[in-house]
Amino acid sequence: MAARKQQLAVVLLFLLGGVLSFPLGQDRKDALTCGYEVSYLYSFTALCFGLLLCVCSWSVFVCVQSCHATKPNMLNVHLVPHTHDDVGWLKTVDQYFYGDRNDIQHAGVQYILDSVVDQLLKNPDRRFIYVETAFFYRWWKQQSSSMQQTVRQLVNEGRLEFVNGGWCMSDEATTHYSAVIDQMTMGLRFLNETFGACGRPRVAWHIDPFGHAREHASMFAQMGYDGFFFGRLDYQDRARRMMAKEQELLWRASDSLTPPVADLFTGILPNGYNPPEGFCWDQSCDDPPIRDDPDLEDYNVDDVVKRFMAIAENQALVYKTNHIIMTMGSDFQYENANLWYKNLDKLIRYVNGLQSNSSKVNVLYSTPSCYLQELHRANLTWALKTDDFFPYADSAHDFWTGYFTSRPALKRYERISNSNLQTCNQLEVLGGPVSRKGPFGGGDSQTMKKAMAVAQHHDAVSGTEKQHVANDYARKLASGWQHCQVFQSLLFWWDVVSEHFTFLRTLYIPTLVSMILSVSVALIQFSVSVYNPLARPVTWPVRLPVNGTAYTVSDANGKPVDCQVSFAVNELVFQVQAPPLGYSTYSVSLLQDGSPPTSTQHRTPTVIQNKFLKVTFDPDTGLLSSLSNLETQQSIKLTQNFYWLVYNASDGNNSLSIQPSGAYIFRPNSSTPFIISSTAQTESIQVRRELVIYTLVQEVRQWFSPWVSQVVRLYADSRALELEWTVGPVPIDDSLGKEVITRLDTSIQTGEYFYTDSNGREMLQRKKDFRPTWQLKQSEPIAGNYYPINSRAFIKDDVDQLTVVTDRSQGGGSIHNGSLEIMLHRRLLYDDVRGVAEPLNETSDIFPEGLVVRGRLLLSLDRPPSAADAHRPLAQEVVLQPLLTFTDGDLNPNTRLEFSGLQAALPPAVHLLTLSQWDKDSVLLRLEHQFQSWESKVNSQPVTVNLQKLFSTLDVLGMSELNLSANQWKDEMKRFDWTPQKGTGRPNLPLTSLQ
Amino acid sequence: MAARKQQLAVVLLFLLGGVLSFPLGQDRKDALTCGYEVSYLYSFTALCFGLLLCVCSWSVFVCVQSCHATKPNMLNVHLVPHTHDDVGWLKTVDQYFYGDRNDIQHAGVQYILDSVVDQLLKNPDRRFIYVETAFFYRWWKQQSSSMQQTVRQLVNEGRLEFVNGGWCMSDEATTHYSAVIDQMTMGLRFLNETFGACGRPRVAWHIDPFGHAREHASMFAQMGYDGFFFGRLDYQDRARRMMAKEQELLWRASDSLTPPVADLFTGILPNGYNPPEGFCWDQSCDDPPIRDDPDLEDYNVDDVVKRFMAIAENQALVYKTNHIIMTMGSDFQYENANLWYKNLDKLIRYVNGLQSNSSKVNVLYSTPSCYLQELHRANLTWALKTDDFFPYADSAHDFWTGYFTSRPALKRYERISNSNLQTCNQLEVLGGPVSRKGPFGGGDSQTMKKAMAVAQHHDAVSGTEKQHVANDYARKLASGWQHCQVFQSLLFWWDVVSEHFTFLRTLYIPTLVSMILSVSVALIQFSVSVYNPLARPVTWPVRLPVNGTAYTVSDANGKPVDCQVSFAVNELVFQVQAPPLGYSTYSVSLLQDGSPPTSTQHRTPTVIQNKFLKVTFDPDTGLLSSLSNLETQQSIKLTQNFYWLVYNASDGNNSLSIQPSGAYIFRPNSSTPFIISSTAQTESIQVRRELVIYTLVQEVRQWFSPWVSQVVRLYADSRALELEWTVGPVPIDDSLGKEVITRLDTSIQTGEYFYTDSNGREMLQRKKDFRPTWQLKQSEPIAGNYYPINSRAFIKDDVDQLTVVTDRSQGGGSIHNGSLEIMLHRRLLYDDVRGVAEPLNETSDIFPEGLVVRGRLLLSLDRPPSAADAHRPLAQEVVLQPLLTFTDGDLNPNTRLEFSGLQAALPPAVHLLTLSQWDKDSVLLRLEHQFQSWESKVNSQPVTVNLQKLFSTLDVLGMSELNLSANQWKDEMKRFDWTPQKGTGRPNLPLTSLQ
Repeated sequence: MAARKQQLAVVLLFLLGGVLSFPLGQDRKDALTCGYEVSYLYSFTALCFGLLLCVCSWSVFVCVQSCHATKPNMLNVHLVPHTHDDVGWLKTVDQYFYGDRNDIQHAGVQYILDSVVDQLLKNPDRRFIYVETAFFYRWWKQQSSSMQQTVRQLVNEGRLEFVNGGWCMSDEATTHYSAVIDQMTMGLRFLNETFGACGRPRVAWHIDPFGHAREHASMFAQMGYDGFFFGRLDYQDRARRMMAKEQELLWRASDSLTPPVADLFTGILPNGYNPPEGFCWDQSCDDPPIRDDPDLEDYNVDDVVKRFMAIAENQALVYKTNHIIMTMGSDFQYENANLWYKNLDKLIRYVNGLQSNSSKVNVLYSTPSCYLQELHRANLTWALKTDDFFPYADSAHDFWTGYFTSRPALKRYERISNSNLQTCNQLEVLGGPVSRKGPFGGGDSQTMKKAMAVAQHHDAVSGTEKQHVANDYARKLASGWQHCQVFQSLLFWWDVVSEHFTFLRTLYIPTLVSMILSVSVALIQFSVSVYNPLARPVTWPVRLPVNGTAYTVSDANGKPVDCQVSFAVNELVFQVQAPPLGYSTYSVSLLQDGSPPTSTQHRTPTVIQNKFLKVTFDPDTGLLSSLSNLETQQSIKLTQNFYWLVYNASDGNNSLSIQPSGAYIFRPNSSTPFIISSTAQTESIQVRRELVIYTLVQEVRQWFSPWVSQVVRLYADSRALELEWTVGPVPIDDSLGKEVITRLDTSIQTGEYFYTDSNGREMLQRKKDFRPTWQLKQSEPIAGNYYPINSRAFIKDDVDQLTVVTDRSQGGGSIHNGSLEIMLHRRLLYDDVRGVAEPLNETSDIFPEGLVVRGRLLLSLDRPPSAADAHRPLAQEVVLQPLLTFTDGDLNPNTRLEFSGLQAALPPAVHLLTLSQWDKDSVLLRLEHQFQSWESKVNSQPVTVNLQKLFSTLDVLGMSELNLSANQWKDEMKRFDWTPQKGTGRPNLPLTSLQ
Repeated sequence: MAARKQQLAVVLLFLLGGVLSFPLGQDRKDALTCGYEVSYLYSFTALCFGLLLCVCSWSVFVCVQSCHATKPNMLNVHLVPHTHDDVGWLKTVDQYFYGDRNDIQHAGVQYILDSVVDQLLKNPDRRFIYVETAFFYRWWKQQSSSMQQTVRQLVNEGRLEFVNGGWCMSDEATTHYSAVIDQMTMGLRFLNETFGACGRPRVAWHIDPFGHAREHASMFAQMGYDGFFFGRLDYQDRARRMMAKEQELLWRASDSLTPPVADLFTGILPNGYNPPEGFCWDQSCDDPPIRDDPDLEDYNVDDVVKRFMAIAENQALVYKTNHIIMTMGSDFQYENANLWYKNLDKLIRYVNGLQSNSSKVNVLYSTPSCYLQELHRANLTWALKTDDFFPYADSAHDFWTGYFTSRPALKRYERISNSNLQTCNQLEVLGGPVSRKGPFGGGDSQTMKKAMAVAQHHDAVSGTEKQHVANDYARKLASGWQHCQVFQSLLFWWDVVSEHFTFLRTLYIPTLVSMILSVSVALIQFSVSVYNPLARPVTWPVRLPVNGTAYTVSDANGKPVDCQVSFAVNELVFQVQAPPLGYSTYSVSLLQDGSPPTSTQHRTPTVIQNKFLKVTFDPDTGLLSSLSNLETQQSIKLTQNFYWLVYNASDGNNSLSIQPSGAYIFRPNSSTPFIISSTAQTESIQVRRELVIYTLVQEVRQWFSPWVSQVVRLYADSRALELEWTVGPVPIDDSLGKEVITRLDTSIQTGEYFYTDSNGREMLQRKKDFRPTWQLKQSEPIAGNYYPINSRAFIKDDVDQLTVVTDRSQGGGSIHNGSLEIMLHRRLLYDDVRGVAEPLNETSDIFPEGLVVRGRLLLSLDRPPSAADAHRPLAQEVVLQPLLTFTDGDLNPNTRLEFSGLQAALPPAVHLLTLSQWDKDSVLLRLEHQFQSWESKVNSQPVTVNLQKLFSTLDVLGMSELNLSANQWKDEMKRFDWTPQKGTGRPNLPLTSLQ
């Protein structure tokens, strides 16, 4: 098969700790340096993309000039008209777009954009910002070309400014960086292709997410944003920052990247993202309009101006410069923009009219980038921040830490869908155009890209949407899967299978309500093709529900492979290997049919072990009791069990606050650690045990109650212990909602510290009842110590580090010394009064009694200095897991039963984050150094990758380096410089030196 | 004093039964015929006004052509986008205009007009109608001249069409024709002056008023409207009309005017004034928008089109032509017109798109006049209607007959304000420009004109607004009074008084909550000037609260006048005379100060009488027992008492319906006439009596309870018996709301008939449990027999007619033979669920325990053929009552203490309805023949008036005849001809021939 010639195209580098260099055997077409060395991130684009950028380069100047003049000797009030359009929440994204189901919530984005454009045209002074490209894209494609031209003009003149500009405003606590980068890229690409440079957002704008991840700030910096604004932070943090005038600060968002690469100027908005009290003039508000006709009743101009001046002057007291910002808008506002603008026009006229009368307040229409420009011009120093903004509490008993776990099935479905999307993207590149032609499923990755992009929204994967909206996200993902059957098509076009082959549906059930496999395979002869989306070979246990009692399995070369059938659960298990960015095909034949032999009761084991790990159980309780790493010869005591927490409305504790747990909020009644223990003790957990010992895998099955069970599993080749938990239906016949956790209690001396990842990338240190940047007054001893876990958490002391890799985002904490708890499932009977107006009480057709959720925790015990060498690749294997496809019948033995898209595996430090067809002639590639600078002696070192010799089937004709979001040439990315204040923030030291 | 030269100007004739002819000594400047004889109504305008009309006459053609083409072989569905903007209801008119207090109701008319104009400009096919000039005027004067030009263009092109066009959409049950004509004239004048002929509404549009008065139809016909549409009629009436396809009909609205003068084509809208179910696309609605992007979820075009076709086809079944109308709008809709129009554009496109696929439904943007034009072209005959549409019931137990009486104090304040406004208008003409210059009060009649105009709204004088809005109407009227102190100014400019004179405030308290006089006069020497707004001399009893015990009073010639002091109530009483359209001044001097003599208990009388009437009382009960007319030598038994009705939520009768009485609805629990009697019997009424006999007036004071009393009063010169009732505070400590009536039980053999006026003009016959145009199924024996009484009601048999003239609009009925009952006051504890969302439970600062209301009934006993000769002038004296003003100190005796604006009184048949300055050089005059064609042998005859010799201080230079509303030359008024269906309707016979 001849190699296709591709402009290599969009290459995008994304590093954690290391340095990549790229010797490339060919000149970059547009100023591409041979052997171009990149110290850090950013990227490369195709020529056509570059041309688009060039065409518009003159208008960058226009955009900058579009800011209204300010007055240096006055207090300048920047009014920023905006709408906050959730990409799904109480209604689905398309319901929001059309304004359907206004009985649920009045909101119609099509009308917002219609109206805003109309109103901007009425007065050239007016400004508007738009944020969510998922909606803007829908609207744009319904417009006439003359309307499109009008809007281009507004954008070029800076009257309509895009901020943030991703497909959605992603959640920060429950998203994985891979999917966030994808959704940002999709939105920003649309803006770039539609509007050129003037459409490039200069400001990141996360006004609503419920806490803020450091990794998001790092990504935004690497995407070229000049600054970042948000609305929600801990109420104590805000209070201190107001006093200290530190609501505007410099966020140093990586301890691996050399400043200012991951530095991001960050502004905290004065009133969430709402207008000042009394100044909401949207159709959804009731504030009095400006009544300035003296012939009519209730002339109120003097009153309005007076109230406004008072608010402005008070706000100026808690910010540093003579510029302040006011967000004039809110959720789905500006559907009738005239109401807002008519009154804002008047406000500006009347307030500024007083300047002739010695007033020192100057009000102007503005945008976040114009405001930011003034802050930059002020040339001050800014407080430095190096930790993150989790957890978020809006008052003493209102910690938004429940959504870290809310809707665990949706969270898992989103994560596995990301894996599938990356696979689909890769196969589209590797397979070339035919891969999109069917015949199996057909279509391309666009449906899945959009489904994944909206799923990143801060009321999507966060689990804080209404049930019908959660169903819609899942439906969209399922539709994405349907349109992404590229693997099968590729096998067809490459003659591995013929058109009349029946492909069995991939084993995952495309529904949000459960991740439990229920497909049963009752075939005599079939094949399993395994695609590996990682850039290094993997082995992977395949577990298939079967009816037979004995099978033979052979690999792509016809060599037999060990396999076994577990009669207890009728599963066929065998290990497969797949090459980097490639597949391998295995044949399976039934040897013996019929019922399984009578189940024999195995003796309860006290030990399971392989060549790497030894696991012991307490024979009296059946619980785990210890874990040992046989290679490093380290051992810890390890007990693991399941507990539940409860918010009970009738509990006396509610004298403090009646805030219940809900989709957002976690608020167990227990207000001291003791009560958590006592809650566990009150549960009557009956433990049954069964040991299944085979050569390939050893399992201990544990039942804790009719609705909590677990399989402890140790594969022969694995350095990780797998805990496969099953929780549900959570009983509510006692009228109590329950939040189920598992807790690992160890002998590790943690000293109240533990560690969680930020969006699946860098690790952050957490300490009980402590915040790095302010003196915490802890009011919720459990909920106030929970943090998001996206891919892993660990606890450690000087000698032992226990890392837990999760298969989805979850919330967790370390409340006791040596202990790590993770919330697995939540079933609640109250709404938490944050707008969703539904209790988080999931049921479905399949699970009418309550959702059953299954998931995996992978435990790795290592020496701290080398722990990352294990957990980094382990977590990537969970994030990007092999895609299996099954074919009924015999394969064509003379065809390509095994294939790798790479000439060789990438070095362990390098992760191939993105490989995706950008356009006909170019490909987007993102390579990532996946180790933090301090975490591995071996793997944190710089690495050199030869892009020319990377691919097996692609000829690289050129490469262009872009920023992280692929919407700007890296060498044109000029961000504002900001000077940190001396002596503020935590020192920028590697994590290992702390504690 | 030299006569001012005035173009006479706008003369407007308005006739009931007679014929007026006008010999005029000078040629009409523009085709004015000398000795012009008018057979009926209409009018005259000033030249400048005429020029305006001429300038625009070409655009009349444009307007007509602006209707979209229809398809003769299809069902044409006329979509009429509209908004219904109450001129006050839940919010005040200015709150509605600005969009203030959106917490009460989301509504902002300024935004509606902004938005509609924007949206009309986006697509020339779109149409909109606007109705309420009170709002449009407010908006217009805030617009830039370029926006005004844009709107003129839209009007000229028929894209924005005014319908109705009065200042408001007047109530039909509680308004007086005089005020209705004024408010219509004010609105239509604004439209005419602003837009010329294209701004002239061709259709009357009373979509919301709660029942429809025949006199309104008559006025609309005489104002040149081609047709009339409304939304509310009795549910039984509608059902029959739907079956018979008589929802479109010809209303013959006068039994005195020769057809087609008062013929008005009338259309009943299909769904009130709302869009069809499921097709409301306003921001206030939740119906699904058209989702026509197949790439998004929930594509629903097929479903929408299917539902729409079904509705259209069903609607076509109950109308006569292949044209049907749909009102696409509702209360305060189109604030964001884009929502409506965007979806309507799509609806039209998709529905008409099916025509290529054999569909026979054609949808188009339309207006009521375009629709009407198609009905006219159909050239059919139409059912004839000669009665009215009262009472209105929307279901069996929901009769909207409570509002006939709701807020009786406001209703009286509105009526007396009209009298004051007419006086003010007249004095501005008679006094000339100086009359507006002050120094007493200053200003002009504009404030009062606008206040009166909004007070005509169907949620204003109707009493169906919220309390704070009722207060606002009263406040506006009070402000009108303040700006209308023309009488005092004129006395100053004419040297009757000097600038340093203190004018005492007119005796009426300008508040809605009570009409009770409470001003006490403690002066030694003062004068009383009495202005008479009628075109004939009147005598009038002046009653003044005083502290002294004896006074002398002298007239303008210094002649002493009889006077007396009633010690019981400390009132000085004397009779004054005032010339036509003129004043007379009386001087009053204190003779004796100090406390009144000890009150002596007079003997309870059994008879009071003057030379015209004899009144007897039952000595046991103290109640009236008989009434005799000494001139005609007729006598009837007459008992009068007070009763209350109640809606009791716990009454068993509520099994039928739980509809309570409220601001709109009257629903006493008693469902049979018996129960009314028993309700009266359960009241313990204690009667005290006192007779005051003087030469000038005889009084019997009756106390029925602490909250019901009455003075029976017979003036020496009067042919009418006055019953001055006082009701309130209505007690509610028994938790029962109460509706208070007075009932006159007589020996007249009424045979279940009685008679009420229509808006103060023609009389209509009513019959118990009967409707002239359908077979009534009576479900509310009391409420279903109540009708509006605006100025009078009578009962009669062959020999006796007892006429009761009221001082305000009230509801009443005749439930028993010989009986007439009038509801006086209502205090209710439930809301009646028609939107106002407040119980009608009036209190005020002055009356914290509940409103006290006082009013008068004037009783006249006559022979039926000559009864009108008495009640017509009597009622006019109550409607246009003298205005009194008081001056402290001596007058200048050598000045004009008496004056008449007329050279001579007009003949008794002719009422001077309007005399008002139109512009600098012209005056609007309306003369009215005030007798129905059948009601008086003497006065129903034609009358000739010589306009040239009418005024004492004006030279008439010319006259121009206009339609009733003064917005069209009478000779250019060409209305559509309509052919009545043979054999339908009641024969158009005079009322006397019925019964």
